Amino acid sequence: MFLQIYDRKTFTERYLQVSRSNKMDPDILATAEVIIQDIQKNGQQALEKYMRELDGGLPEQWTVTDAEKEKAWQSVSPEIIAALKKAAENITSFHQKQLQQSRMMTATESIMSGQLFRPLERVGLYVPGGTASYPSTVLMNAIPAKIAGVEEIVMTSPARNGETIAPVLCVAADIAGIQTIYKIGGIQAIAALAYGTEKIRPVNKIVGPGNAYVAAAKKLVYGDVGIDMIAGPSEVAIIADDTAEARCVAADLIAQAEHDQRSRVFLFTTSQSLIEATQKELEKQLQTLPRQVIAKASLLEHAALVLVTSIDTAFELANALAPEHLEIQCQEPLQLLGKVQNAGSVFLGHYTPEPLGDYFAGPNHVLPTQGNAAFASGLSVDDFVKKTTFLYYSKEALEQAAPYIETIATEEQLEGHARAVRMRFLDR
Amino acid sequence: MFLQIYDRKTFTERYLQVSRSNKMDPDILATAEVIIQDIQKNGQQALEKYMRELDGGLPEQWTVTDAEKEKAWQSVSPEIIAALKKAAENITSFHQKQLQQSRMMTATESIMSGQLFRPLERVGLYVPGGTASYPSTVLMNAIPAKIAGVEEIVMTSPARNGETIAPVLCVAADIAGIQTIYKIGGIQAIAALAYGTEKIRPVNKIVGPGNAYVAAAKKLVYGDVGIDMIAGPSEVAIIADDTAEARCVAADLIAQAEHDQRSRVFLFTTSQSLIEATQKELEKQLQTLPRQVIAKASLLEHAALVLVTSIDTAFELANALAPEHLEIQCQEPLQLLGKVQNAGSVFLGHYTPEPLGDYFAGPNHVLPTQGNAAFASGLSVDDFVKKTTFLYYSKEALEQAAPYIETIATEEQLEGHARAVRMRFLDR
Repeated sequence: MFLQIYDRKTFTERYLQVSRSNKMDPDILATAEVIIQDIQKNGQQALEKYMRELDGGLPEQWTVTDAEKEKAWQSVSPEIIAALKKAAENITSFHQKQLQQSRMMTATESIMSGQLFRPLERVGLYVPGGTASYPSTVLMNAIPAKIAGVEEIVMTSPARNGETIAPVLCVAADIAGIQTIYKIGGIQAIAALAYGTEKIRPVNKIVGPGNAYVAAAKKLVYGDVGIDMIAGPSEVAIIADDTAEARCVAADLIAQAEHDQRSRVFLFTTSQSLIEATQKELEKQLQTLPRQVIAKASLLEHAALVLVTSIDTAFELANALAPEHLEIQCQEPLQLLGKVQNAGSVFLGHYTPEPLGDYFAGPNHVLPTQGNAAFASGLSVDDFVKKTTFLYYSKEALEQAAPYIETIATEEQLEGHARAVRMRFLDR
Repeated sequence: MFLQIYDRKTFTERYLQVSRSNKMDPDILATAEVIIQDIQKNGQQALEKYMRELDGGLPEQWTVTDAEKEKAWQSVSPEIIAALKKAAENITSFHQKQLQQSRMMTATESIMSGQLFRPLERVGLYVPGGTASYPSTVLMNAIPAKIAGVEEIVMTSPARNGETIAPVLCVAADIAGIQTIYKIGGIQAIAALAYGTEKIRPVNKIVGPGNAYVAAAKKLVYGDVGIDMIAGPSEVAIIADDTAEARCVAADLIAQAEHDQRSRVFLFTTSQSLIEATQKELEKQLQTLPRQVIAKASLLEHAALVLVTSIDTAFELANALAPEHLEIQCQEPLQLLGKVQNAGSVFLGHYTPEPLGDYFAGPNHVLPTQGNAAFASGLSVDDFVKKTTFLYYSKEALEQAAPYIETIATEEQLEGHARAVRMRFLDR
């Protein structure tokens, strides 16, 4: 057999009872700390030093110019432009429904209270470089910020050959409404966005994926600016009954596994024959996959095919795992949705493969990994909005509340708090 | 003059142009790291070791017993119980309006998408020990979790003399619906809640204030569990016109300053005479304040009285500061609310002193500090809820979307993603 098969007990021991830790490599953190402190203290000069050392030089133009953008639009195929525009439309439509309005909680003559919703002012999006470019990252991170009302969205990405940003990223940035694209990568990009330099205005929040150095830098600047999350390797869990097709199950597991050799993929099923057929399909489909080596490493190290005695057990295990993506390839998928407790995003039925959500359908693909779906949520418009509470009391209302406030303040030994209330009612 | 007076330019230089950094003491972080790793690895045994060393011994009972709770209710005065109950009622009423329902974004025959809202399952609340007890902390942290639908809320606090928790905290915990109170403090409490031991079940998220060691421990476990935020010293900014009363302005500045000698307090006003009168009031009111030493240290080191030429300038400076608390002591406070961009919580008018919100009125008192209000929000029901997106496509809908998805997947060099879609439409 290709992959190991688990039951409830062995899966629990191997995957659920281990003490998870998402701690970072201390050496990488130490490197990031040095660069960040230097840029925070010495600004532009330090930024340029690290760009020379690590980005391979300083670009002639720090930001993508209008001429470069125009050239980018001409060099990207009409099919890709159409696909990105259609995806942007779907992502916009989904996220628009997340927008909340400022509202009153209480509104009497004497007491008013409520919540203001205000967009963040400036947001920075980090987009990794590398051999492949990910325009979907640009859309998924920038569109919710745009919908929230963020005035200024800037993007930064390491320049290829120290000079250009991949045309498809420039096009995606234009579609998403990003104003400025900096040609800076790595830790130095995160530090510059967090603290600002002569040429870079600081932002309020930094979002977007990156390698271990970028992730460490984001963790370190968190608290001085906001960050989205620290993402780990991608994950999918599939819950399937005997109506699922092995070749589709296998294809979806492979689609996740091809991301990264650390990707984790899981199948929970009541069907022994589905497990057997999926094994065969995995072997067969891997043979012709371009990213075969990566996918195979992931499948051999971080995959589990789990035979369960009921669909309820499948949900129990999946909820305990809290996977980033959860596919429900069962006969009545919508009826099973209520059983989901912990998952980043759920894909229902036989015709909703996870890549549909990755690229196109509307829900965000920036999702909590490594069990974080038990306490965290995917990226949404909420991540680009501040909620500010407000309160108004009339003189009469405060007078009625005063004895309670003074009682608690005195109990907490904060006499100045009690006096601030009492002062309003003292004779002059 | 008692305090330094600034204008727009000098205030900007002194408070807004400095590169803020909320970085923690590396020695404290290192200490926290050692204890956390030990407890994560060695569980109960390590926890007990640190409780002996740092909490002054092991309590006979690890949790507050029913008998202890009963005794607590008898020893707390009826006035305090009534005040806490009334506050809990107001806090509940305000936060109930934050509760969101799962919802559909799209609902056609062929495409369904939406968001599930699910409460976190287990939440831990840290409550500091020390000479004074803060029952308001218990209410403000636990009530939003309860409203979100969190099944299990546990609290932990260092035991006095290694044995008891302050009665008023036990009463507040009962009022807020907390089931279990552990008698554990410090870093070891955070580690035990994050990773679990033989006697402590791990939680999904840890909230609540604490000293520098507790804050460092929360920062380190973040990512393995959720945390609320890393809170810094408390802050208030007051925007006042000439309708404000100096004695009330001074009393409110002192109420903030008495928290901590690192507290930061600010007055922005168009009135020179208000600044002069506030100086006199501060000196006078400090003389009889029990926490005079703390408040005076804060006022001398971290206070600014700022004379501005217009209320708009006051808002410009306050928004750039992004204070935890913002009081608007002006003639038409509600009309000025729209000018607020960055603040944790806003207090409107002459009869809405900040302690009213600290204890009683309903909005949460757990708020972003140190400029974090520019990107973060106060504690709310949202902090105890996970948002899980979901998606369903019919065969026909996927077929229409397929070319777009394949185009983007191919561009991103993820052929397995394209195949997962194509597989659904291949002949068997």
